[in-house]
Amino acid sequence: MKNEPLEKGLVEVFTGSGKGKTSAALGVVLRAAGQGLRSHIIYFMKGEYPYGERKVFPLLPNVTCQSFGHEDFVDPNNVKEEERQQAKEGLEAARQALAGGDYDLVVLDEINIAVAWKLIGIEEVLQLIEDKPQNVELILTGRHADQRLIERADLVTDMVEVKHPFRKGIKARRGIDY
Amino acid sequence: MKNEPLEKGLVEVFTGSGKGKTSAALGVVLRAAGQGLRSHIIYFMKGEYPYGERKVFPLLPNVTCQSFGHEDFVDPNNVKEEERQQAKEGLEAARQALAGGDYDLVVLDEINIAVAWKLIGIEEVLQLIEDKPQNVELILTGRHADQRLIERADLVTDMVEVKHPFRKGIKARRGIDY
Repeated sequence: MKNEPLEKGLVEVFTGSGKGKTSAALGVVLRAAGQGLRSHIIYFMKGEYPYGERKVFPLLPNVTCQSFGHEDFVDPNNVKEEERQQAKEGLEAARQALAGGDYDLVVLDEINIAVAWKLIGIEEVLQLIEDKPQNVELILTGRHADQRLIERADLVTDMVEVKHPFRKGIKARRGIDY
Repeated sequence: MKNEPLEKGLVEVFTGSGKGKTSAALGVVLRAAGQGLRSHIIYFMKGEYPYGERKVFPLLPNVTCQSFGHEDFVDPNNVKEEERQQAKEGLEAARQALAGGDYDLVVLDEINIAVAWKLIGIEEVLQLIEDKPQNVELILTGRHADQRLIERADLVTDMVEVKHPFRKGIKARRGIDY
């Protein structure tokens, strides 16, 4: 697997209420790993919950991750200072990941929610994009993507929920949903 | 990584014109691998083109794939008998993968297009679902999902293209798009 850097890294956004946002970002990471690109995933608001994918990142070449936040759901109407601080640290980690030259692909998972719930500001995310080196691909996931991010992004997919088993009371299943 | 089978496997459909359908299915495969589930991906109409993900499947536990078809795009207005035959073989492989008991997750990539372009019939796909063992998860991807499949599925996400760089003439990029 040769490592030719990306000529031009774009900004991709996976948003919407349907299943597939984080999954799609992970799929791109898998593809990137197979083509010799180096990926780094930064999880916002997801904590150390045993997400399946994290157990196999070490088996893939050049796939690493960091996680900021708790596994407990953040209450958007009652955001704690600690949660804001964790998101801020995630943002700082994103800055370093982009600037450091160690990665071809950086995924900021659930960052859109962190913005929607005002844990971090959209201006900070737009600045991150502004400062992004040209040859790094950046993927931002999470529902409620800010309109200014959508305008700035090169690729946006709205994952629309047509049907979801959670609506029928079926709980998240290990290996499929986490 | 323990291997507890799925209690109840559902039918998931990733359709729509936006980026993320195959990627999302691959993301679920990655997650499944991390949780000890066994996945098999059947590619329709994709041939042996060097897709990034296929290079790293051997590094993951219990991830295998088969591919049926050519890397050349099928012309829906001029389907060749050979292309129909390949899709039929893919369908037969899907039947065996579901019935064999060797997999917890089976992905039928681009099968929706194979149906939309009449390489295979929707009735055959619905029969496949009808015969699916209860503890196997089935993911079907590709745009133009048939309405009868949408009605039958437990989960459907419509990946709506809001923006795509291909529209601006940017070509598919190695490691990101394939």
